[in-house]
Amino acid sequence: MKTLVVCSGGLDSVTLAHKIAAEESLTHLVSFDYGQRHKKELEYARRCAARLGATHEVIDITDIGRRLTGSALTHGATVPDGHYAEETMRLTVVPNRNAIMLAIAFGVAVAKEAQAVAAAVHGGDHFIYPDCRPPFVKAFATMQRFALDGFAQIALETPFLRRSKADIVREGARLGVPFEETWSCYKGGDRHCGRCGTCVERREAFHLAGVDDPTVYDDPDYWLEARRAFLAKHPA
Amino acid sequence: MKTLVVCSGGLDSVTLAHKIAAEESLTHLVSFDYGQRHKKELEYARRCAARLGATHEVIDITDIGRRLTGSALTHGATVPDGHYAEETMRLTVVPNRNAIMLAIAFGVAVAKEAQAVAAAVHGGDHFIYPDCRPPFVKAFATMQRFALDGFAQIALETPFLRRSKADIVREGARLGVPFEETWSCYKGGDRHCGRCGTCVERREAFHLAGVDDPTVYDDPDYWLEARRAFLAKHPA
Repeated sequence: MKTLVVCSGGLDSVTLAHKIAAEESLTHLVSFDYGQRHKKELEYARRCAARLGATHEVIDITDIGRRLTGSALTHGATVPDGHYAEETMRLTVVPNRNAIMLAIAFGVAVAKEAQAVAAAVHGGDHFIYPDCRPPFVKAFATMQRFALDGFAQIALETPFLRRSKADIVREGARLGVPFEETWSCYKGGDRHCGRCGTCVERREAFHLAGVDDPTVYDDPDYWLEARRAFLAKHPA
Repeated sequence: MKTLVVCSGGLDSVTLAHKIAAEESLTHLVSFDYGQRHKKELEYARRCAARLGATHEVIDITDIGRRLTGSALTHGATVPDGHYAEETMRLTVVPNRNAIMLAIAFGVAVAKEAQAVAAAVHGGDHFIYPDCRPPFVKAFATMQRFALDGFAQIALETPFLRRSKADIVREGARLGVPFEETWSCYKGGDRHCGRCGTCVERREAFHLAGVDDPTVYDDPDYWLEARRAFLAKHPA
């Protein structure tokens, strides 16, 4: 099945691209420039497409990003440290982001005559992001079926929907994903900071998966502190 | 209910804005610049917002429009004359346009703390555009409910969904809409051409509604020819 992958250049979506390339026909990668502070992850998406022989385009939605206020990803707010902090993670939500990006990706899929759009939403995001949960994914696919009725039939593939980030790392290791060619950090430094929510999640996922983490972090041990604080607050 | 209206500056969406202003609380108009050939309709949207005391923003999605190929609206193809010509009207479809614009509008509604998004989809478009049909509208509203679960509750209002364009003209006349301050023509002239699909639809809708059409057309009688050709081909 000719498949278009929505790829940010992060660990999850680069692993997804490798999985689709191995199991389906990966034809196209789509990335979004919504005004994120640094473009490093987009460069990793470009390299991923080149490595896998897919075409790649970066769609400029900065004017949309600018209007969806309240997000640490696109605005001046300080990026919070740590993991598991529901209140601070809410700051990093761009309202309706997945619906917007997926709707655009489906439009591109029609133009490219692809049969499927694949996205890397995963179980680890469920607790905070409603647009990463199974009911959203199912409702989105249904909406697209009606939206394109008679014009195109395009499936929505989300193979990580009920998997954890550690599962994704395990799958990536199996597929030979060069993890050092992926980017997670919310901050704009030369290396992963090791302290922001996505760095902590990344570092912990490698730990839980039992896979060596090739990432160079400015603060490689902070994740343990964040994890201890969370476990003290939420005893099993 | 604080309502955001998606308004192109066309007859349908300007009438919708007047209806919402009369019946609800119209707070905000959103228009999209997707690279349409001329910006005249956006100017009519701006004037509509000013007239009704709502804020207005034009969201730049030209980079998206550019990639959704095959459309006479955004590309070099010649705009076909006439009405009812299913094959030529397909040329004017931007794939997934309504899903994309509505998803963005819902994001803006979250940012603006609106309680509803209103859109002017209507029954006259059903036969050709799948993303103007009731099953799409219902599925889209369901998708948004899941996408924003826990963050916002935003309704999708489509009061013209089962009404014809002639019904909209009648409603506009009742509400005192200044129809001369709306734009329908697909071509880029100073006046409505009178020959393209949307000009023919507009002219015919005034006729069927029994409302005087204040529009100045370059070719004011072409619609009768298009109508006769259709009726000869599809006898009642």
